[in-house]
Amino acid sequence: MVEARVSFTSSGTVTSPHGFLAGATDAGIKKTGVPDLGLLYSETPCRAVGLFTANQIKAAPVVLAQERLPSKKARAVVINSGCANASVGEPGLNDAIKMSELAARRLGVSAENVLVASTGVIGKRLPMELIEGNIGQISLSREGGHELARAIMTTDTVPKEGAVTVTAGSSEFTIGGIAKGSGMIHPNLATLLCFLATDAVVGLDFLRHSLKKAVAASFNMVSIDGDTSPNDMVLLLANGQAGSKLISESGTLADSFQRALSELCVYLAKGIARDGEGATKLIEVTVNGVSSPETARLAARTIVASPLVKAAVHGNDPNWGRIIAAVGRSGVEVVESKIDLYIGSTCLLAAGLPLAYNPEEVIRVLASSEVPVRLELNLGTASATAWGCDLSEEYVTINSAYTT
Amino acid sequence: MVEARVSFTSSGTVTSPHGFLAGATDAGIKKTGVPDLGLLYSETPCRAVGLFTANQIKAAPVVLAQERLPSKKARAVVINSGCANASVGEPGLNDAIKMSELAARRLGVSAENVLVASTGVIGKRLPMELIEGNIGQISLSREGGHELARAIMTTDTVPKEGAVTVTAGSSEFTIGGIAKGSGMIHPNLATLLCFLATDAVVGLDFLRHSLKKAVAASFNMVSIDGDTSPNDMVLLLANGQAGSKLISESGTLADSFQRALSELCVYLAKGIARDGEGATKLIEVTVNGVSSPETARLAARTIVASPLVKAAVHGNDPNWGRIIAAVGRSGVEVVESKIDLYIGSTCLLAAGLPLAYNPEEVIRVLASSEVPVRLELNLGTASATAWGCDLSEEYVTINSAYTT
Repeated sequence: MVEARVSFTSSGTVTSPHGFLAGATDAGIKKTGVPDLGLLYSETPCRAVGLFTANQIKAAPVVLAQERLPSKKARAVVINSGCANASVGEPGLNDAIKMSELAARRLGVSAENVLVASTGVIGKRLPMELIEGNIGQISLSREGGHELARAIMTTDTVPKEGAVTVTAGSSEFTIGGIAKGSGMIHPNLATLLCFLATDAVVGLDFLRHSLKKAVAASFNMVSIDGDTSPNDMVLLLANGQAGSKLISESGTLADSFQRALSELCVYLAKGIARDGEGATKLIEVTVNGVSSPETARLAARTIVASPLVKAAVHGNDPNWGRIIAAVGRSGVEVVESKIDLYIGSTCLLAAGLPLAYNPEEVIRVLASSEVPVRLELNLGTASATAWGCDLSEEYVTINSAYTT
Repeated sequence: MVEARVSFTSSGTVTSPHGFLAGATDAGIKKTGVPDLGLLYSETPCRAVGLFTANQIKAAPVVLAQERLPSKKARAVVINSGCANASVGEPGLNDAIKMSELAARRLGVSAENVLVASTGVIGKRLPMELIEGNIGQISLSREGGHELARAIMTTDTVPKEGAVTVTAGSSEFTIGGIAKGSGMIHPNLATLLCFLATDAVVGLDFLRHSLKKAVAASFNMVSIDGDTSPNDMVLLLANGQAGSKLISESGTLADSFQRALSELCVYLAKGIARDGEGATKLIEVTVNGVSSPETARLAARTIVASPLVKAAVHGNDPNWGRIIAAVGRSGVEVVESKIDLYIGSTCLLAAGLPLAYNPEEVIRVLASSEVPVRLELNLGTASATAWGCDLSEEYVTINSAYTT
């Protein structure tokens, strides 16, 4: 068996794989004069799959994408920021269809092979005249993924993008991606916008399966504020231009593909957590010794989402009781006398009993840009890691005046 | 049948009913020189019941109270603030037992008839020498409920207390109560400290039943931050000194007792929501037209607990899409095209379609001290109301430096 090399680059983007082009423009949907309308385009038809918000209130683009996916003929995604096209009834769905038609005309492809995504304020109609009037301004390029990564930002402060290349013998393929998501982020299927593209030759079933697996351990393990947006989606398009062997469940490259996709998704997910609204640091919570993977994930996510834990980390306050209280209310079985708790490498609680510790050392860890928290429940063999950010005064400021 | 008159007074307290005394002292558990140790005492044995935190990590006083209740002989409650006596293992339980013994000796009653409650930082042992050295300083009085209401405060800015008197023919009885709870408040059984006392003659079964019912529609419908404390409890003591007829499920005064108890609990619960950490206003969310009472409660609580909704209300931002997004992720069945939404008396969404509205009017409502939000799901006949507060920068400031 040929050894596969998986190499990640943070300078990569969604157009790093062969045959993908992108671009963006300032269509005036946002009033701030920044790019807010973009296109991702594949020169050849793609196998495409998606994962969508679990919110029962689904934005029109989500409804449309759920109708059009999975597909073997996807050619493009048109995306706007500044308006969510959510909670506006039937007219919103017509606007989303119209938006796919405008993109299709611009690109010379068929409208049903175009997907649509939107992000921004809920409850406002899309300004269709701005989209129609400006979509022609978008120029596509092989470097355009970087521009598109900026155009999909809302309260994000930095774009999130990257790419992974897998080399195995004579086979080589790349997976690239961009993501956005700063508020309304909580683990419940896809709660953000993420567009992934690959030139690998991948079967549709395996594509769907591997996306689900990668998202479960990445985007679904990120929490900013416990809210789940009606809009968000993760799309994965595979155009097969790398000409590698067909990657399927039983194929030799399946593991490498999964590893590369998962690595990219974790990278993008951590980028989202680190750039949560008002965040000053990344919190990484690992829970080990749990009876099942599902309960391990629930425990890790509950801790990382606790406002009191997040506020304590913000203030570099070693108030570890809040971590124990959060896991205690998570619904996951715990036995107090078996719990060990670590912040960084300092053990604060062993077998349920508080230990004397050096507060300076713990405060130093809490004050760093990545804060690792580890809980050992000692009740099983399952583990999970979740990512979040601290809760700052700035989060409140951002969110108390979003539409005004 | 005799008409019952239920009259509420906000100047009442837990010692308003006959035969109850209370007092408090500064024992030095908190470093700020404020009262932090108190006693509630009944001259005669009480029927007593309690409701406790759903957190699996239970503070020692909760474990002890669950052992000792229900009781027909309860005589006193000893309470401290400044230290939770939680997450400290077996020694914590011994400390709680010792605290009940110290109170029993001070009062000349039997230790097993004394209940204990604690609130404050998790993971620190109780300073038993401070409790032992200062419990003798507490002087009990008929007015002492007011002092006790202050002694149980942590980050609360105002005490919460009140009393209700029921008069029906020649019968008259009073229920009084005090409560605390400013952070770590979320609906999941009793997530705060609340001590209720009555001089009514009440059977133990009915006492338990009526407390459960009152708490379900009051304290369990309050959310400050989604966190549930390991410590909190609601206790109800009935000493029978009013000499009224026995109140039981089938008795003539059952309805009046329930009404009075529920009114008092809602008053105290709203007081807690209004005084949430950093709060500047009360949010009252009513959800009507739901298929069951349980799902109605879930919908109302999810909305009132959403950080994005809370931040928008803080900033007087009519960003109503967040309310719709919150109910959409609540797990409660919704049909988008049937939803009506009101802020104050302004309808923003009718049958799922946004209406033109006067933003000045909605901003005026959002800027007031009580913000009523009403959602009509139009899918059933059940309703629920939940209370919470806005999310301010001050909440974060308070919670980022709680132990330091």
